[in-house]
Amino acid sequence: MASKHWKQLIAEKRERQAATIPKEWILTNLPPKEALNVIDFPEKSGLLTDKELEITSAHVEVLLEKISTGIWSSVEVTTAFSKRAIIAHQLVNCLTEIFIERALEKAAKLDEYLKSTGKVVGPLHGLPISLKDQVSIKGIESTLGYVSWINHYAEKNSVLADILEACGAVLYVKTNIPQTLMWPETFNYVFGRTLNPFNRSLTSGGSSGGEGALIALKGSPLGKFCDISLISIRIPSAFNGLYGLRPSYARVPYAGCVNSMEGQDSVPSVLGPMSTSLEGVKSFMKAVVGQTPWLKDPLAVRKPWSEEEYQLSDHGGDKKALVFAILWHDELVLPHPPVTRALEHTKTALIDAGHKVLDWKPLKHSDIYRTIGGIWSSGAAEDYRVATQPTGEPVVASMKPGVEDPDHTDPEIPPFRPLADGISAFQLWQIQKERRDLRQEYMDHWNATVRSTGSGRPIDAIISPCAAYAAPPHGMNKSANYTMVWNALDYTALVIPTGLSVDPVLDAKKPPHEFFGDLDKANYEFYDPATFKDAPLCIQVVGRTLEEEGVIAMGEVVDAALKVKFMNSKL
Amino acid sequence: MASKHWKQLIAEKRERQAATIPKEWILTNLPPKEALNVIDFPEKSGLLTDKELEITSAHVEVLLEKISTGIWSSVEVTTAFSKRAIIAHQLVNCLTEIFIERALEKAAKLDEYLKSTGKVVGPLHGLPISLKDQVSIKGIESTLGYVSWINHYAEKNSVLADILEACGAVLYVKTNIPQTLMWPETFNYVFGRTLNPFNRSLTSGGSSGGEGALIALKGSPLGKFCDISLISIRIPSAFNGLYGLRPSYARVPYAGCVNSMEGQDSVPSVLGPMSTSLEGVKSFMKAVVGQTPWLKDPLAVRKPWSEEEYQLSDHGGDKKALVFAILWHDELVLPHPPVTRALEHTKTALIDAGHKVLDWKPLKHSDIYRTIGGIWSSGAAEDYRVATQPTGEPVVASMKPGVEDPDHTDPEIPPFRPLADGISAFQLWQIQKERRDLRQEYMDHWNATVRSTGSGRPIDAIISPCAAYAAPPHGMNKSANYTMVWNALDYTALVIPTGLSVDPVLDAKKPPHEFFGDLDKANYEFYDPATFKDAPLCIQVVGRTLEEEGVIAMGEVVDAALKVKFMNSKL
Repeated sequence: MASKHWKQLIAEKRERQAATIPKEWILTNLPPKEALNVIDFPEKSGLLTDKELEITSAHVEVLLEKISTGIWSSVEVTTAFSKRAIIAHQLVNCLTEIFIERALEKAAKLDEYLKSTGKVVGPLHGLPISLKDQVSIKGIESTLGYVSWINHYAEKNSVLADILEACGAVLYVKTNIPQTLMWPETFNYVFGRTLNPFNRSLTSGGSSGGEGALIALKGSPLGKFCDISLISIRIPSAFNGLYGLRPSYARVPYAGCVNSMEGQDSVPSVLGPMSTSLEGVKSFMKAVVGQTPWLKDPLAVRKPWSEEEYQLSDHGGDKKALVFAILWHDELVLPHPPVTRALEHTKTALIDAGHKVLDWKPLKHSDIYRTIGGIWSSGAAEDYRVATQPTGEPVVASMKPGVEDPDHTDPEIPPFRPLADGISAFQLWQIQKERRDLRQEYMDHWNATVRSTGSGRPIDAIISPCAAYAAPPHGMNKSANYTMVWNALDYTALVIPTGLSVDPVLDAKKPPHEFFGDLDKANYEFYDPATFKDAPLCIQVVGRTLEEEGVIAMGEVVDAALKVKFMNSKL
Repeated sequence: MASKHWKQLIAEKRERQAATIPKEWILTNLPPKEALNVIDFPEKSGLLTDKELEITSAHVEVLLEKISTGIWSSVEVTTAFSKRAIIAHQLVNCLTEIFIERALEKAAKLDEYLKSTGKVVGPLHGLPISLKDQVSIKGIESTLGYVSWINHYAEKNSVLADILEACGAVLYVKTNIPQTLMWPETFNYVFGRTLNPFNRSLTSGGSSGGEGALIALKGSPLGKFCDISLISIRIPSAFNGLYGLRPSYARVPYAGCVNSMEGQDSVPSVLGPMSTSLEGVKSFMKAVVGQTPWLKDPLAVRKPWSEEEYQLSDHGGDKKALVFAILWHDELVLPHPPVTRALEHTKTALIDAGHKVLDWKPLKHSDIYRTIGGIWSSGAAEDYRVATQPTGEPVVASMKPGVEDPDHTDPEIPPFRPLADGISAFQLWQIQKERRDLRQEYMDHWNATVRSTGSGRPIDAIISPCAAYAAPPHGMNKSANYTMVWNALDYTALVIPTGLSVDPVLDAKKPPHEFFGDLDKANYEFYDPATFKDAPLCIQVVGRTLEEEGVIAMGEVVDAALKVKFMNSKL
């Protein structure tokens, strides 16, 4: 293998990938490259029947109900989502591994089981679930977008794949990621770039960018992403207008997945669900946690699903009287006008629903960014080198258009790519200690809000931007700070779409403000309403560590308030 | 300060320490140095009244009950334990900081509160609790046995001290530890060496050796130890014949304590209780977890006390039909005859009580030891250097008698002291990755026992030695492998005294066996029954990660079986 040129290996892999696409689903009526917003194309493609359109437009809870009552078969549902996934792939290049035949066999068995026993095998019976490339499935390749890992077939299921199959899920595709995973956009030499279906000139984010684009195009009802360290479940959710949960470390089992920077124990990456409905997120979490993952993955935390916490026992138990605090900016970079509009919109919606909304004062965010960056870069360059060396593929140094051509070289200094060797273990410990102290300070800071809420409790959750901008053009997502801060603190964070999207009229450029610094100035100058047209606008609901149940419940409160406001605005 | 010689700083500190001992409690009738077993001396000292003897002989549950019903006041109880602690200190040198006056003021306030309101302030109302030196208490020194840290007064309580005080506990003394904490014996230049009260020629273990000796002498009913990485709550519990629980990482809050090797996040040290009764261990855990430590310490795991798990819901819910597996040896070092006798005794006791007992097959213990050792030594030398540099005190390089004289030099190469600089962060990640994989293998190995238990479950718990020997002579505790393996796997481990102790007749030296290797041969040759006379014999009950409730419940099962067997043997 080592004797072949890495470009040759890519060519062979792409040929194999193409062969897994059912020929009858290859479209000849694709929109031209210049058509930016392709979100509605699947409906118009002519490939999907009315029933398939109905199926692929249904949310997870509806799908589960209809499959379990025999109204729709799993084969029907799997076929519908598979077709739509292949359409999506042709529009935005979101898939890596495609194994539909295998999925349909599994679906048929599930249908048969339900028919003969009258029972479902588990809480996700018959539901197709797409998985990010790194989640290992027995017999399927796990390249992680590294040329050197082509032909690495998983010898066994990851714990998560096992659990999902035990719950009755049908796995059918894996989705695209950035090389090394550590970049909030999605491009690698093996599979190329994933585009944003709302505006193909924009990025779908990363590292779960393939998943985000696929679900936005309804090629999957529910996906499983990885909120790695720096990068995010949440950035792709936000850039593609989806619900996405970043659970705390180890709430969802990671064992058996492939990853970059393995052995980096201090800021573990996490897996979490992304879906077109919040109910989908909840179904996923309940199902996975219900399978006692801590008996299968030694790192998974022993914490059963708590219905009590879901009833907000830690938040006064009253879903109508919560106290939120909005992070308007991190004192480093002021978000673009549409992001601020989404926050204002959320604020009004919550106040209208009877909640209290305060302002969140950021605490030492720049120190937090610095320490978490220091932890990652302490050994990252060596890690990337080891992964790319066997075939000599370059380490991606830019996400700007043009890199699809592997001969392209970009002179820019990459923000997410430490190139130099790392530091000593003792030096790493010092950064980790500093970060632990920052976590304590942030917790104290949160607890101190008890003095201003009037509820007798500290604020219940923070409402935060997902980024300083909506989905930016390819190569321009140069900061993950607004998501990364919650990784560093290990807070549970849920992305919720506001229903709004960038509108060049409503989101006109403002006159310059007093800049926090160069980064802020650059971000201001970068804004041009036309560029971001149609990009969805989401917000984050941020709760405490291992508070998945409470954050989902508070997310439902926020989501309901946003939906009421949206309906009222249409009246 | 830097201008003073480090020996001068020690002399001054020791003078200050001596001044905190109430003069009327200084004994003139102490046993001669040659008297080895001093465990019964406090009763004979003449300093304690009959009532004080009754109080200090009572277990935690009795103390809590009598204080809360007003039969004994907290002032009485605190006075009794304080006196006995000072006696213990004069026998085995177990204390570091002594603040009895402050404790009695607190006790008086608690008594007053109970009298005026009829209520207790919390589940540990009025109970004196001793704390290991590293647990910071506002206004009290936290030297950790480093000369350079003399005069480091804690500016605020650690989270644990806060929680214990909120529960109504009375803090009155802190206890001795080894310099750097990373040694399973207790000696440092500042406070000197702690001896084993059952046989003062033996070590009391470490790092919580001061605590172990103090509780064994009933100078404290309940103590709080640290099961750091390599070292142990459990070694001192085992060497002093006590109950001691090593909870999983972060079940008990660590925030605000001082520590060595801070920032080493991969094998975090943990805090856990040590007591003369298992009920004491349980009271402590329930009280601490009941205070929602996860809202005070960002690393503490959000997991309320589970009564369901305590009822063994994960183990068939039947306390009369469990399946244990005994680890007789780790395939590297065969334990000494008394340790094996304690295991055999436990096996019979459990079978008599109706349980099933299998043999535990160790899996790759030597790889586990190597990886955990590699993680610690990756930055330890630099850490120790930074801590000792300011005053130039030497890093302790031996625990052999003689080191009390700081001019003493010992040529031996220390087993627990990496002297060379560590490795790179990337190299550390590789070891951490290997260790994660070993955790997965060990879990799979455990799960595979489902095929041989006949219960439909994998084995419920492992019964393990605490060390390959009972408390050894000073300077001879050169391996912590039998406790360390469970740290590396993050399993919950509970030390239980069997009621037996080393008996030169019953525990005669055996003919040589076929040695596993040099370590095994050395350990065999090291055994001489007379040397270990009177050393207590304990075993470990080992459960899964974050399974504190279940392990305490299974520990109660084992403890009850051992007590029945002990009583039967006396009939």
